Amino acid sequence: MSIRYLTARLAQQIDEELMSASGAFSIDQLMELAGLACAQTIATVYPLHGDQQASNSRVLVCCGPGNQGGDGLVAARHLSMFGYKPTVFLPKPGSKDIYKRLQRQTENLAIPTLSSIADLKDSLKETDVILDAIFGFSFSGPVRPPFNEVLPLISKSKLPIVSVDIPSGWDVEKGPVQREVDQSGEKIEEVLMPDVLISLTAPKEGVRTFKGRHFLGGRFVPWGLQEKFALNLPAYPGFEQIVELPSGEGQQRL
Amino acid sequence: MSIRYLTARLAQQIDEELMSASGAFSIDQLMELAGLACAQTIATVYPLHGDQQASNSRVLVCCGPGNQGGDGLVAARHLSMFGYKPTVFLPKPGSKDIYKRLQRQTENLAIPTLSSIADLKDSLKETDVILDAIFGFSFSGPVRPPFNEVLPLISKSKLPIVSVDIPSGWDVEKGPVQREVDQSGEKIEEVLMPDVLISLTAPKEGVRTFKGRHFLGGRFVPWGLQEKFALNLPAYPGFEQIVELPSGEGQQRL
Repeated sequence: MSIRYLTARLAQQIDEELMSASGAFSIDQLMELAGLACAQTIATVYPLHGDQQASNSRVLVCCGPGNQGGDGLVAARHLSMFGYKPTVFLPKPGSKDIYKRLQRQTENLAIPTLSSIADLKDSLKETDVILDAIFGFSFSGPVRPPFNEVLPLISKSKLPIVSVDIPSGWDVEKGPVQREVDQSGEKIEEVLMPDVLISLTAPKEGVRTFKGRHFLGGRFVPWGLQEKFALNLPAYPGFEQIVELPSGEGQQRL
Repeated sequence: MSIRYLTARLAQQIDEELMSASGAFSIDQLMELAGLACAQTIATVYPLHGDQQASNSRVLVCCGPGNQGGDGLVAARHLSMFGYKPTVFLPKPGSKDIYKRLQRQTENLAIPTLSSIADLKDSLKETDVILDAIFGFSFSGPVRPPFNEVLPLISKSKLPIVSVDIPSGWDVEKGPVQREVDQSGEKIEEVLMPDVLISLTAPKEGVRTFKGRHFLGGRFVPWGLQEKFALNLPAYPGFEQIVELPSGEGQQRL
């Protein structure tokens, strides 16, 4: 039995069930575990210590205005606790209460927050790894300012990119697509191509062709929901919060 | 610099600061990370797989009516995700909303919940490890029913016990004490002596004499609070949520 890749509709439905009576999770709980899984993925692939040690410490956490941005803020906090030097890029802060609390938590750790394109450009010169937590599975184009500028800047930086759930700008079902900018008809030339992907709960249809290192996080889906949606999730090792999926896992099933 | 052992007053103050502006944490976040640390401690000391493998899977999670009971419910959920077969013993469910949601989450995982002393007695015959999440650092005696019966039953079971933060019945500053039952003057003969302790945030004064394996969890205390209270927390390894303290760590400083 192979792992199930989710359509946008299914991903939305599972998210809703996790927060309804069949999951009973609060958004605080889900974001905490999702963000922790993102931070642990970075610490696994770009460790501060050990054989693969490099100057991996400066992580630029790029956050969108939705729930995935919240995952990014949680990840930034845990990365700081792990000894990394995260910086948050947050051009459009979300308005929900949880978002403000998570921002406050990064401020309490003295994690710098940037918001302008000029600051982003400067910061990219002093970054080792990018965490892309801009758009999640509920995003549908076009890409509105300032993100029409942000996505190409991140791509062109040639820095290692770890994307959360679905690489920003990709279609959740069709994968890499050239998005339009606003309603102008102009297209974003660069399509974001991350090195690493951390799928949350279950991978989405659009990442079947992804060829980099692919992790799964969100070890909290109740058995009943796993069965109901025939997720066929892989076994997580020990008490870990992430599991690496075999390379090319998705392609074999196309 | 050695790790700081907290008085009851300090522990309370740090807890409040974590949830005030200087921490900005929600109770959901703190319990999630605390409960995860408890589950990981059990999985470390009593693993399901590996050299030390034994029949460790049946964990009886004993929960009190306060926040520590909530940590226990979260731990039970994570233990289930790790492949353990937890059972929750919850004779006096807490009334807070979060407590009800956490209970619902264990129900969603089909984790059995027991509430009577008779059920506890039966369950102890089919338990490999006990997680003691009954009383936390804010408890002060006497021990009211049904816990005056629960504590000796757990002690006399001779099963391995993992206590959360402060072994239930111990004085948060004085350590092991013979508690009175209610206002009767009668004393509880058995003092709970756990094999393993998982201190949360920072160890409490009362556990200085503890001689078993001692872990620390709660890798979320902002740097500013760590400094303000001179906690001198040890370095956690890698991206782990728990760290083992050297044996006899507390005694050296008495």
